[in-house]
Amino acid sequence: MRLYRLSAALMAAIGLLALPAAADTSKATPTAKELLAKSKPSEWRTPDPQNLLYMQLPQGRVVIELAPDFTPLHAANIRTLVREHYFDGLAIIRVQDNFVTQWGDPNDDDNGDKSKIKPLGSAKRTLAPEYTRAIDATLPWTALPDGDVYAPQVGFSEGFPVARDPASGREWLVHCYGMVGVARDVAPDSGNGSSLYVAIGQAPRQIDRNLAVAGRVLEGMAHLSGLPRGTGALGFYTQAGQRVPILSVKLASDLPPAQREKLQVLRTDSATFAAIIDAKRNRRDAFYTLPAGKIDLCNIDVPVRVEATASDKH
Amino acid sequence: MRLYRLSAALMAAIGLLALPAAADTSKATPTAKELLAKSKPSEWRTPDPQNLLYMQLPQGRVVIELAPDFTPLHAANIRTLVREHYFDGLAIIRVQDNFVTQWGDPNDDDNGDKSKIKPLGSAKRTLAPEYTRAIDATLPWTALPDGDVYAPQVGFSEGFPVARDPASGREWLVHCYGMVGVARDVAPDSGNGSSLYVAIGQAPRQIDRNLAVAGRVLEGMAHLSGLPRGTGALGFYTQAGQRVPILSVKLASDLPPAQREKLQVLRTDSATFAAIIDAKRNRRDAFYTLPAGKIDLCNIDVPVRVEATASDKH
Repeated sequence: MRLYRLSAALMAAIGLLALPAAADTSKATPTAKELLAKSKPSEWRTPDPQNLLYMQLPQGRVVIELAPDFTPLHAANIRTLVREHYFDGLAIIRVQDNFVTQWGDPNDDDNGDKSKIKPLGSAKRTLAPEYTRAIDATLPWTALPDGDVYAPQVGFSEGFPVARDPASGREWLVHCYGMVGVARDVAPDSGNGSSLYVAIGQAPRQIDRNLAVAGRVLEGMAHLSGLPRGTGALGFYTQAGQRVPILSVKLASDLPPAQREKLQVLRTDSATFAAIIDAKRNRRDAFYTLPAGKIDLCNIDVPVRVEATASDKH
Repeated sequence: MRLYRLSAALMAAIGLLALPAAADTSKATPTAKELLAKSKPSEWRTPDPQNLLYMQLPQGRVVIELAPDFTPLHAANIRTLVREHYFDGLAIIRVQDNFVTQWGDPNDDDNGDKSKIKPLGSAKRTLAPEYTRAIDATLPWTALPDGDVYAPQVGFSEGFPVARDPASGREWLVHCYGMVGVARDVAPDSGNGSSLYVAIGQAPRQIDRNLAVAGRVLEGMAHLSGLPRGTGALGFYTQAGQRVPILSVKLASDLPPAQREKLQVLRTDSATFAAIIDAKRNRRDAFYTLPAGKIDLCNIDVPVRVEATASDKH
């Protein structure tokens, strides 16, 4: 009973279920599910298929949305690598607990066979860092009201968590859970997208502005976060058989439309997203008796759905 | 090469390796490993074996330190449950991505067989909530300098992440990664320690002060975080075979001393811990070119080690 009740309350909290019928819901904040159910079609964005990577693992598919408005050179280089099948046959090589899952060429590593390193083809070997960019006032910006430990301002832009520093006029993508970054060598221009990582624990904010962030996992995050941790230094797998093979990475735009996933992302400049943030800040229901009254940037997950069908719209 | 270099730099950052010999370390902040190597024996605390739970899973052992100064009734009830072998034969029943891994009695759930619910023995069915406590000025307190989105003050006390509200005179354990909480029913007094959860993603700060926090995982966190996520609502496993069996949970104090682990926790009121926080706030080395200058409470993991042997001391 206890577990169920916790479940029901948390389901309500995360929007999977309505509150139990018996609960006093008169003062309850709406759930994300309730708010999403009332959203308008225009509040949802269908990502550009040129920005969607489909990474096929044995466990299933991971869908990543690139962020070319923030890291355009990296998005372009990753597209080149994908189109030349660079990632096909590579692997997840490292899972470091409470930090990152990283994938790329196992031979491009200290213990790898350097003679077998996969060539980058026509992709560039080095790129300008793109750790930050000039604040673009033309991009939509949804500021959060509760401050941030690391940055003067935080909020969302085009579906991504962003920090801003008005004093320097710079903004950057934040390493929240599920954000995908570009591994690099010591040289700041040495990241080229051939090895990527995703944040799987407490947001590693100390690497913000020290690495380029390429995008966000929209679907299949559990295939990356729920892996056994590597037992080598930094979570590297110590045996080849522990690595998860990457069957293929494809761009959605290179697939026939019928084979593309019908994913939509809630617009972060929509009224529904603002209402969800407000409800999460002031959560009050049968289970939550003391609302936090605040929310951290990385405690907000931008909703993703499968595009509503005709029947969903009724 | 790139992966290795990233590895080396990050190893340095997290204290597993010194910086590559070729790097310019003249302006580098010391690593945690370097600071820990210089720590004094008196800066390490050996937890009271009455506060240490050994949870044996097929994958290995998880060690949890209870926090009786913050949640004494829960610590006492959990000890009673453990001593009466309540947890032996139960299971990990739920892994919800970016939230919690939870364990307890699979039958004490909506889909369980109520007739088979394991009795609590002499443990109490209900407990006073213990979500917060009066600030105890006699406990050591190491305040962090960079603020917090959720609480007026944050810092460490006795090895645990703690938030304080001087206005109300209350303090509470924070749901950082690896902190262990007490599942409950809707009624605030319905948590009794028979089902526990651990935070496995971005710190779910919204549940602070809404649930009792019982302690922290000192060892074996990867056995809880690196599990496949449940595919049912809230991450519940949908089939019995997916659950991870709990072979046993024992109190260290109930084992002969020779069978106890020699774990030590760095004192959070020590000079070395203060130096580690400072180094993490101002990380500068060959890889990190832009130190954050700040740190969030939940980005600090209190160091744990196996007690130094005679040879380590040289």
